[in-house]
Order: sequence, then structure tokens, then C-alpha cells
Amino acid sequence: MLSKNKIKYLSSLSEKKSRAENQAFLVEGEKMVYEALGSAFEVKSIYYTDKMRESIPATLSQKIEKIEITGNEASKISTQKTPQGLFAEVSIPEDFYSEDFSYKGQLTLALHDIQDPGNLGTIIRTADWFGVKQIICSKSTVDILNPKVLQSTMGAAFRVKLTYTPLIETIKDLKRRHENLPVFAAILEGTDVYRSDLPKEGILMMGNESKGLSEEIIALATHKITIPRFGNTETSSESLNVSVATAIILSELRRKTIEAP
Amino acid sequence: MLSKNKIKYLSSLSEKKSRAENQAFLVEGEKMVYEALGSAFEVKSIYYTDKMRESIPATLSQKIEKIEITGNEASKISTQKTPQGLFAEVSIPEDFYSEDFSYKGQLTLALHDIQDPGNLGTIIRTADWFGVKQIICSKSTVDILNPKVLQSTMGAAFRVKLTYTPLIETIKDLKRRHENLPVFAAILEGTDVYRSDLPKEGILMMGNESKGLSEEIIALATHKITIPRFGNTETSSESLNVSVATAIILSELRRKTIEAP
Repeated sequence: MLSKNKIKYLSSLSEKKSRAENQAFLVEGEKMVYEALGSAFEVKSIYYTDKMRESIPATLSQKIEKIEITGNEASKISTQKTPQGLFAEVSIPEDFYSEDFSYKGQLTLALHDIQDPGNLGTIIRTADWFGVKQIICSKSTVDILNPKVLQSTMGAAFRVKLTYTPLIETIKDLKRRHENLPVFAAILEGTDVYRSDLPKEGILMMGNESKGLSEEIIALATHKITIPRFGNTETSSESLNVSVATAIILSELRRKTIEAP
Repeated sequence: MLSKNKIKYLSSLSEKKSRAENQAFLVEGEKMVYEALGSAFEVKSIYYTDKMRESIPATLSQKIEKIEITGNEASKISTQKTPQGLFAEVSIPEDFYSEDFSYKGQLTLALHDIQDPGNLGTIIRTADWFGVKQIICSKSTVDILNPKVLQSTMGAAFRVKLTYTPLIETIKDLKRRHENLPVFAAILEGTDVYRSDLPKEGILMMGNESKGLSEEIIALATHKITIPRFGNTETSSESLNVSVATAIILSELRRKTIEAP
């Protein structure tokens, strides 16, 4: 049983403001709770319904509070259509939103104002699949701890490091510090990505869902690339979803890496 | 101004049951309304707020009813976070849900129980981009006229033909009628899609978000393909989002088509 205040607190964690005030976020469902427990993040409490009791790992640290809740309470704190009856309250590390980013000579994604939580989550999941460990993004990109983002990452949010930065300044700074850094911009009128050389390091910049990349950020690119359209160009889709475009480019990049002599 | 009953009716169109009863669906926003007007579908009425009056095409057919609504009414019939103040009520053609499917010797997508509206919409949008004109899907796939599906297609729903069929029977039947029909199954343990020959025709089968393709449907495949994972295989994402996986495979297929001698 939870107090009214506790229920209010836990459901408030779906809002960024409350997460910031309380330095905590909530994940839901077996998959996400296990990922949280297996990560470097500190899990404070596990909330579970009677039905999910068996799903709690037996070897749970003594420090983690275990609290049984009713199905009704689970519905109240859930952000999903079908509440899953298992939640973890996780601490936000102090330096989580630090702007510091150090480029490690690997491919890094740069996201400019991605707004849709499902898109950001899917991009993080895909990045993880393709071994991209670092993502930088503009400050107005949707929050990674938004429940829908977390859910769409399928756990990858615990493995891929996302750094919220003043994106344009950060890329300018990276270019100053790393000579000949490849900076790719995915735009609608670039060179065919299938016929372009894609290095296995550098920055890949992807833009906002409706506006794409701004002129200012495109100006930083050393290469402009495009996924060619194969439909009837007069009548078919005008663009690809940004998480789809990111996936296709990452796939191309990895394919070329393994096929390179 | 709309009557209470009219508001109730228009907002009910977000439900499949009401769409079926009324043989109508609603699309929202400039992009989707223009796509509807430019399509073979019959637009019955346009609903617009004062602010969107200028957005209505001047050459609109006399048959289409134009109804001004208030911002408050727009909010009530909208299914979006930010109501867009422009709607089209569109007739569902009589044969829209006909199970009849005739294979045209082009690549055809086969979707098995896709549940998430955003995923289905994104797959349709991507299919359109890559020139895939036909999709077949199981009867328990989410409805294409669901407002979230329509929105995610960005208009492609008006161009790509989706046929709801008893999927397994339909594929069996296609295999009987078309000798040597390539049938690809996207699974987690198939051959590397980058190193596989991908013909430009046949069926590409994609499975449900959590369960993938069933054993029964995989048994129909002539080829099993996989997108290789490049992250640390012990700790990285276990799978890709289905709309992302579909996009990567379609991209590979189109790339190979243009590069083939």
C-alpha cells in the first residue's frame, strides 16, 4: 500500500520538473527494471504487484527497498496503456546532465532538437545495436528520462551515453580540437549515402522531425549525405522518419566498415 | 459551430468500431488533409478553424462541405497533443478491407501482427520512400485508419495499398501460384543481410514487436535474414525496433538493386 503522497510523487516522475527536483526517475516493466538493476545507476526502490512478486530477482541488494503495491496503485503510477506491475525508482547521478563531452575517436551521433520521445528512444536503441556508445544532442532535444523515451530504448538508455550540450558550440569545439574530423550531415540534397565513403569515426548529425538540420549546423558539415528515394519521386514520401534515417545510415556505415579491405 | 452530436461523431472516428459503422475516417493537419484531397479517396467534409481558413485550397470541389469550427471544437475532435485546426472527413471505400490480393511481381511487405500504430505508420512511410507499393498484413495488425498510424505515415497511407489478409494462408497461396517466389523472413538468427543476395521481388516478412515471426510463418520462408549486431553482443540491445529493421532491409535491397550489374 502506498500513501496518497507517495502515489502523487511517483506519478509526478513522468514530468521532467519533478525528476529534476527529486533527482529520480521511474522505469516500468520487467525488461526495464532488470536493465536498471544491471546498470551503474542506483536503484532506490522496487514497486511490485502481487502478480509480479516472483519476477523480483532473489539476489537483490539489501539497500533496495521492496514495496508491494496494489493493481490499482500500479495503474496510477504507470505511464503505459497496460500497466506492468513492476517499477524501479532510480537515482539520477549528480553529473548526469553535465555538458562535458570528450570525443573518443569513435562514431558519435549528434541530434539536433529531436522532439518525439519514441524517435529518441528508437535512435538510442539502434545506436546501441550498432555499437555507437556516445550521442550528443542539443539542449532542446526531448529528455532521455522521459518515460516514453526510456521505454522505446528497451534498456539501451542504460548503456549509451547521451550528453545534452549547446550542440553547435560543441561541434565547433570538436572540429577545432580534432583536425580533419569527419562531420556528416543527413539532409535531403546530399550525396548518395550508398556511394559515399563513410569513415568509422566522426560525427553524424541528424535533424529535427519537421525542420531537419538548421543552416547554421549544416555549415559545420564536411560531408552532406542523403538516402536516395526509390519511389516515384513526384508522388512518394517526402522524407523518412528521423529514427529510420539514422538507422539506415548507421547500417550503411557498419556494412562498409566490415567490407573495407 | 458543431452540434454536440457532430462533435461526438467526429471524435468517435478515432475508434475502429465507429469508423466501420460510419464508413468514414478523419485526418488532421495540413499535410494529411492535402494528401487526402490529392488521393483517390472521397473527402466528404473539411473542418477548419478561423486561423486555418487560408489553408483550404481555393479549387476545392463543390461537393466537399466546408465547415468552420472553433478552437475548442478542434481540440475536442483532435487526437493530437497540439490540435492543428484542419480536418478532413474521408469516406472508406467499400472494398477497402477486401482480402483480395494480387501479387504484381514486385517486392511486397508482409507484416505479422504489428501492434504499435507508430511502427505501422513508419513502415508504410518507409515502404513508400523505397517504392514498395503493396503491403499485406495479418488481420490482427493495427488498423491503418487509426489516427496515429495515419499521422505516422505522413500521407503514405494514401499511396501504399495495405491488404488485411489471413496472412499465412495468403503466403501459402502465393507460393503455390508463383513458382520459386522468394520469401524472406527477418529473424534474429538468419544469414547476414549485407552478404545475402536480395532479389528485387518476392515477399519480405516482418514480425510482431515482442514475439517476432511465429514458427509457422517462418516455415514458409525460402530465406532467413538478419541484420548483424555491431555492439558488444553480450551487453547491447537484443533487437531492433521493427520499423527500423524493415527500413534497413529495404535500404539494403534497394542498394543492391542499383549496384547489380
